[in-house]
Amino acid sequence: MLDKIKSPDDIKQLNNAELNSLCDEIRARLIDTVSKNGGHLSSNLGCVELTVAMHRAFDSPRDTFLFDVGHQSYVHKLLTGRNDRFDTIRKAGGLSGFMNPDESEHDGFVSGHSSNSISAALGIATAKRLRGDDSYTVAVIGDGALTGGLAFEGLNNAARSHTRLIIILNDNKMSISRNVGAFSRHLQSLRMRSDYIKTKRSVKNRLDRVPLIGRPLSVGISNVKSFFRQALLGSNIFESIGFYYMGPVDGHNIEAVQSLLEAAKLSNQPVVLHVCTTKGKGYTFAERNPRDYHGVPSFDVTTGDYTSGSENYSSQFGRYLCDIAERDHSVCAITAAMTEGTGLGEFREKFKARFFDVGIAEQHAVTFAAGLARKGMKPVFAVYSSFLQRGYDQVLHDAAIKGEHIVLCVDRAGVVGDDGVTHQGLFDIPMLMGIPGVTIFAPSCYSDLKAMLSTAVYDTPGVAVVRYPRGGQSEMPDGYSATVEPFSVFGSGGGTAVVTYGRTFSAAYAAANGENADVIKLNCIKPLDERLIDTLKRYDKVVFVEESMKLGSAGAAVADRLMESGYGGRFIHRAVDDRFVQQGNVQNVLHEYGLDAEGIAALIKGE
Amino acid sequence: MLDKIKSPDDIKQLNNAELNSLCDEIRARLIDTVSKNGGHLSSNLGCVELTVAMHRAFDSPRDTFLFDVGHQSYVHKLLTGRNDRFDTIRKAGGLSGFMNPDESEHDGFVSGHSSNSISAALGIATAKRLRGDDSYTVAVIGDGALTGGLAFEGLNNAARSHTRLIIILNDNKMSISRNVGAFSRHLQSLRMRSDYIKTKRSVKNRLDRVPLIGRPLSVGISNVKSFFRQALLGSNIFESIGFYYMGPVDGHNIEAVQSLLEAAKLSNQPVVLHVCTTKGKGYTFAERNPRDYHGVPSFDVTTGDYTSGSENYSSQFGRYLCDIAERDHSVCAITAAMTEGTGLGEFREKFKARFFDVGIAEQHAVTFAAGLARKGMKPVFAVYSSFLQRGYDQVLHDAAIKGEHIVLCVDRAGVVGDDGVTHQGLFDIPMLMGIPGVTIFAPSCYSDLKAMLSTAVYDTPGVAVVRYPRGGQSEMPDGYSATVEPFSVFGSGGGTAVVTYGRTFSAAYAAANGENADVIKLNCIKPLDERLIDTLKRYDKVVFVEESMKLGSAGAAVADRLMESGYGGRFIHRAVDDRFVQQGNVQNVLHEYGLDAEGIAALIKGE
Repeated sequence: MLDKIKSPDDIKQLNNAELNSLCDEIRARLIDTVSKNGGHLSSNLGCVELTVAMHRAFDSPRDTFLFDVGHQSYVHKLLTGRNDRFDTIRKAGGLSGFMNPDESEHDGFVSGHSSNSISAALGIATAKRLRGDDSYTVAVIGDGALTGGLAFEGLNNAARSHTRLIIILNDNKMSISRNVGAFSRHLQSLRMRSDYIKTKRSVKNRLDRVPLIGRPLSVGISNVKSFFRQALLGSNIFESIGFYYMGPVDGHNIEAVQSLLEAAKLSNQPVVLHVCTTKGKGYTFAERNPRDYHGVPSFDVTTGDYTSGSENYSSQFGRYLCDIAERDHSVCAITAAMTEGTGLGEFREKFKARFFDVGIAEQHAVTFAAGLARKGMKPVFAVYSSFLQRGYDQVLHDAAIKGEHIVLCVDRAGVVGDDGVTHQGLFDIPMLMGIPGVTIFAPSCYSDLKAMLSTAVYDTPGVAVVRYPRGGQSEMPDGYSATVEPFSVFGSGGGTAVVTYGRTFSAAYAAANGENADVIKLNCIKPLDERLIDTLKRYDKVVFVEESMKLGSAGAAVADRLMESGYGGRFIHRAVDDRFVQQGNVQNVLHEYGLDAEGIAALIKGE
Repeated sequence: MLDKIKSPDDIKQLNNAELNSLCDEIRARLIDTVSKNGGHLSSNLGCVELTVAMHRAFDSPRDTFLFDVGHQSYVHKLLTGRNDRFDTIRKAGGLSGFMNPDESEHDGFVSGHSSNSISAALGIATAKRLRGDDSYTVAVIGDGALTGGLAFEGLNNAARSHTRLIIILNDNKMSISRNVGAFSRHLQSLRMRSDYIKTKRSVKNRLDRVPLIGRPLSVGISNVKSFFRQALLGSNIFESIGFYYMGPVDGHNIEAVQSLLEAAKLSNQPVVLHVCTTKGKGYTFAERNPRDYHGVPSFDVTTGDYTSGSENYSSQFGRYLCDIAERDHSVCAITAAMTEGTGLGEFREKFKARFFDVGIAEQHAVTFAAGLARKGMKPVFAVYSSFLQRGYDQVLHDAAIKGEHIVLCVDRAGVVGDDGVTHQGLFDIPMLMGIPGVTIFAPSCYSDLKAMLSTAVYDTPGVAVVRYPRGGQSEMPDGYSATVEPFSVFGSGGGTAVVTYGRTFSAAYAAANGENADVIKLNCIKPLDERLIDTLKRYDKVVFVEESMKLGSAGAAVADRLMESGYGGRFIHRAVDDRFVQQGNVQNVLHEYGLDAEGIAALIKGE
């Protein structure tokens, strides 16, 4: 069945039995592919019927679809001509694991970072209105993504926008981590309502109950208004700010969802449609533990097993932080809906009162941390490099200006691999370098991480950052012992110095060893230690290698100071030069950008 | 009366007549001082009684006060031991025009940027809870500031936090520009309620109506709950997410406000207190035109006159954009609550359908613009440099990755003067340099601005930025004509090149002229033109001068390329080196940092 679907038009003619088969096939394809490629499973299993109903009720790409975050867009990809290439998902050169307008005209807007869909959809819907295009714009957003401030800004601007905007709230009772926040409780109360819409018949019954409405549905907007307002709804936050709210509806009933979508189309005012779905639906292991199958590596379909227990920077960080928090009751941990991803699971269990999952709200996380710090607590915010981008102003304005002592543990720094272009951790250094008073540590191994975390918490004023990559540590020199000195020199005074930090150190050390060059490992990227410049001036050639954007990088800062100091030797700077890095295996990507041992060796040799 | 108030304790004993005199004196002092120093007037006149009531009901600094944005904190400053120094406000070395914890223990948290108060207050209140401190934390936030996503993130996390947090919604029916958004309409509907609380008696009457409550107010929390829920309230957004909501109350009635604050103190759950105030209250000109007296230069108290009509970059930008929009119906203008400040007043009147004031929501503004662009519109977002910091992730993720063609007109770039440390436009270049595909233009005069704006709209792919300072253009060389070539060389091949851009060009030109040096004016800061490096290599000495943070700057990028290219000459880089710049007259600040003609001349001479 699935193989016959070449475009959304092919779904519109299917009967009930065929639709059920199609959904089964989609689930099988999802499980099969994700078990091989890794990726997002639970969220996609949860929105199979919803996505099918959307493609029956609307006319994509004329009607524009946006899936917020995009980790639930796999079903949409399967139904829009990408079934053939689906086994390339998240591979180099293959399909993106998120929405990508360059990949298909059916992808309305880029996704990857949470909470942007309403604002982007409003822009698209407004452009349509201005151009006299009467097609619909449909944004699908999860309850987790709604906790981001950008989503609220979008709602605030969208509610009375006079556009044909339909927001589908895909409520699976769970964001990536446990969804706390008051808003989530509000949704819960809506879900508990007795008049939950489970079947097409219940939609029809209610339509029939409303005078002047019912079959046929083609009624005037003013009636639809009262229908929405009086028949289906209680009072809730969406209505309070002016949306038409419909729901909740059982998101696994294609007919029921489709009927409500058809009803929503009658409005020329923005609508919020509340759809309840079950994360992981149809795969027992994922239904039982949807969080474990949110983002997964490859796994065994029959047993559900995958290797998640292996050590990595995140798990090590979580353990060290627990050690510190055990002794020091002023230490708090904050996550923006990434408890597991950042390694804070153990902290959450052990120190409940000092653990804060703030939802997908990095801005709040930083400012909240600064507030905690002002009253003497020691807050540690663990966050992926790419997502910290949302807290830039808060780091600068709320923390750095008054030197509030907060610790940012920046996970997934550097190339991230399969998640691709929207998730690269290549911007945190340019972002943080320009903020006065920030200190940035870059561990190259777990013992570095432990020492630097302690120094960040106890011996660093103001904003202290510890950044580390996805995955585990690389090989370190024999007898290596961690230090928090600004930099360490490895070698005995060759003519060439390779300067680097973090993960790249291992590659640089391997390359330099073969070429008789020294390696200078920056333990602290910022502030720049003036002795580093003096040290570098002793070399004929300086090769600066870093897994970061080049503009605004540590290497550029060093070049600036070297230039001013009158350094006359040769200088080579290898980093990512003003381009976005696409998805692919981390090692392959590092190789492509010349950031592995082979690439560094070539720079030392001067090739 | 005011001169006798040395601390908030002195207010607590005053009788009604004395309080009225005090408020009159405060207003006179506000009008007198702001008429001389410039600053924020309307918002402070609007919160005189509210602030007095707060200091009577609470015990600052034990109870912590946060004023969001801080432009309404002048009254608080007058009442907390800073009356003596109030005439230094916004002057170099004087009082800040915003909240500053380094200035007084009564200032709970830094302010300046909007919408951070709830998150910061929640951090402070949470720290208190963890430390067993039972004092209150009080955040005052305007209806405008509530449109920022960070405020919503804060509300979402605060509502059920079990802290002694009191949020005072200072609703003056107006943010800086006209407040549009759906949320604002919701507040309006709350204000329209018939049971508006105008007097202390009406508070008392209602307290009496509730069984088990009333005199004395010292009742159990569970009763207060039902009191709040049933007696005072209708259904609204704050209740929907779990706050106790009280109000609205007439914010100019000290007794009424104080009574409600006392009632709010009985709750150990977070409370939202809705206070209605009149912006500009007590100064006729400001009451009539509160927007004109929001942020003002010095003015004549008797006539209300101030010179706002003079030409500046903002007004020029507004005019040029209107010219373009007249011819091209796809051009849209977006502002984040800064219509007047960014010069978009005329655009709003002329092109209503294509003008969007999104509230204080820079994240949304950028993503909305990217959505408009995706469907073929040409959105221009005019925003202050400092506030663009809140849209960093959106520029990167939502616009740059897919190369959406949006134009960012970055106003107040560089040193801003009296607004001081929280508002400096010194970070936009480090912030934007690291984002691939961004083009940054830097006009040095109005004719540059016109040419560059046109080029940004029509001849630049992806994200195009035009950045310009606060105020008007400086003197340009005779016969200067604008160009959008990457750079222009002024001079005839002296041994020294001064490289600069934007406002600094005039100073550099004046300095170089006296010293027989060339000036290289960067019209386009990014991307870096390789021919610039070739050109610079012809000079013995390169002096790079820029009004920006040094780390991550254009100069650092040039140094990086010069270093790699083997440049052997002397290089001096003058910028702001990793420190926050404080308030003061712009010319004085530029002088202090060596960024004026005198400072540049000294660099050329090699002093």
